[in-house]
Amino acid sequence: MYDILIIGLGCAGYTSAIYSARYKLKTFIVGQEEGGMGNEAAEVGNWPGEIDIKGPVLMEKFKKHALSFGDLVTMKNGLVKDIEKIEGGFRLHLDGGETAEGKAVIFATGSVKRHLGVKGEKEFAGKGVSYCATCDAFFFRNKTVAVVGGGDSAVEGAVILAQVAKKVYLIHRRKEFRAEPFWSDKIRAKPNVELVMERTLKEIRGDAKVTNLLLNEPHAGSDTIEVDGVFVEVGSDPAVSLPVRLGCALDERGFLNVGEDQQTNIAGVFGAGDLTGNSNHFAQFTTAAGEATVAANGAFNYLQG
Amino acid sequence: MYDILIIGLGCAGYTSAIYSARYKLKTFIVGQEEGGMGNEAAEVGNWPGEIDIKGPVLMEKFKKHALSFGDLVTMKNGLVKDIEKIEGGFRLHLDGGETAEGKAVIFATGSVKRHLGVKGEKEFAGKGVSYCATCDAFFFRNKTVAVVGGGDSAVEGAVILAQVAKKVYLIHRRKEFRAEPFWSDKIRAKPNVELVMERTLKEIRGDAKVTNLLLNEPHAGSDTIEVDGVFVEVGSDPAVSLPVRLGCALDERGFLNVGEDQQTNIAGVFGAGDLTGNSNHFAQFTTAAGEATVAANGAFNYLQG
Repeated sequence: MYDILIIGLGCAGYTSAIYSARYKLKTFIVGQEEGGMGNEAAEVGNWPGEIDIKGPVLMEKFKKHALSFGDLVTMKNGLVKDIEKIEGGFRLHLDGGETAEGKAVIFATGSVKRHLGVKGEKEFAGKGVSYCATCDAFFFRNKTVAVVGGGDSAVEGAVILAQVAKKVYLIHRRKEFRAEPFWSDKIRAKPNVELVMERTLKEIRGDAKVTNLLLNEPHAGSDTIEVDGVFVEVGSDPAVSLPVRLGCALDERGFLNVGEDQQTNIAGVFGAGDLTGNSNHFAQFTTAAGEATVAANGAFNYLQG
Repeated sequence: MYDILIIGLGCAGYTSAIYSARYKLKTFIVGQEEGGMGNEAAEVGNWPGEIDIKGPVLMEKFKKHALSFGDLVTMKNGLVKDIEKIEGGFRLHLDGGETAEGKAVIFATGSVKRHLGVKGEKEFAGKGVSYCATCDAFFFRNKTVAVVGGGDSAVEGAVILAQVAKKVYLIHRRKEFRAEPFWSDKIRAKPNVELVMERTLKEIRGDAKVTNLLLNEPHAGSDTIEVDGVFVEVGSDPAVSLPVRLGCALDERGFLNVGEDQQTNIAGVFGAGDLTGNSNHFAQFTTAAGEATVAANGAFNYLQG
């Protein structure tokens, strides 16, 4: 039986594992994707000490750090299908039938990308509809694409795409971007980006692949934009399905409800990172790392009795 | 007039400046010591991505990052003597008569080392009594020293001293250390460290310099320990004198009281790092950086109106 089970291989998961190992706790860390959401940041400029680093490179450094404690940390790449309370702890059920047991749990499952819910979105997923510019930009080199959204990930995504695509439309339903001025300034300086403000998508159309987008109102004389692909970047929702199955409470906005010590309403169950409402609901590398530190310390104190 | 005034040149101050600059805010950052408390960590193993780095080296990376935004960030090394509310913002009074004005303030002043309050402590300060092992260890090479305390900084301090001193006594009033097991294990493996548990210091004695320590009860047959120096590492208190002068409220433990957005009871005044009670009162690089991120975002939102 492990001391701590950590679910999630992103910034919060790895940081929890680093602290857990320094507390000499036998640690099991598992997740679907090494690096988690951190992988999707093409250009990280806000991890203190690293002026400019790629997200996957930063996450690889975190992973190496978490695995630098010898036997103390066991990592597994896989999907956690279920979690249950057992005598003296908790049991994870992994895809493939494997199980893992531990005395305390830290959920660091992050968030999942939000969908638009428009006609054609599901049909053309993977056929021109993408949810990660960093991951898929290269498939659209010298092509025409659109990005939908106005926050950091949308504007950052459009900047990335502008470097490889021939033309990028950035479609946002409001007058102004919610993104950091750092990103808004960058996008305005790109000659091959056309801003389509105060418009929303009504439909994604195509045949074998995406060919055009239908807007709610005409832009530059037409309600249709010809594209080879569309990137949906309209935010994300906290990945709380596993903690909810265990009986953990959510806050009024649907985030995992945790106290000052990052503990949920269930003793021995903690949360850290984008799925929780702490750090003023602000999802950054630094806030995820801070919360993970507090969660691991909380779990250590819990295990001390 | 600056947009943001940041007081403190440690982890929280630099991180606030990085975020502030990315928000395109005109930023002034000032403090007495570059690196702050981060400088005192000889061996940092819990900043994610850096398996083993010296505190001053890590802080230098943070500083370079904060100063990588051109004109946006102005840094000054100096003491802030006073702060006052003015029309539309705040004014800092620096040692030497200089002033700086800004629309919002982030206090990142950290904490100050606690004193024992025993006879001889004040008298021999700088004459064998030190509050920073990392800073002063080298002066005691091949000598005999004592460390007083049982937390991370005491045990880490003893480990550092054991590498240069001939002999180290670690005096702690309890049966067990409060330090991370990582450090407790290290100290037990040092042959030149003698643990003096369940003892307290009654007096620090000497002539021109420290020569011996008087214990409350005998250890190994004597109530006196001959030493060339003593390191006091019994914790620290939040550095809240400036925010208190401005009218900021403290929590029940004397830390700066801040909300979810790191804002104090005074609009436009924020706090981040060791002086605040957030992050469950846990003072780490990661928690300071997380709080600083939230504070800078809070200040940005405040300035937007």
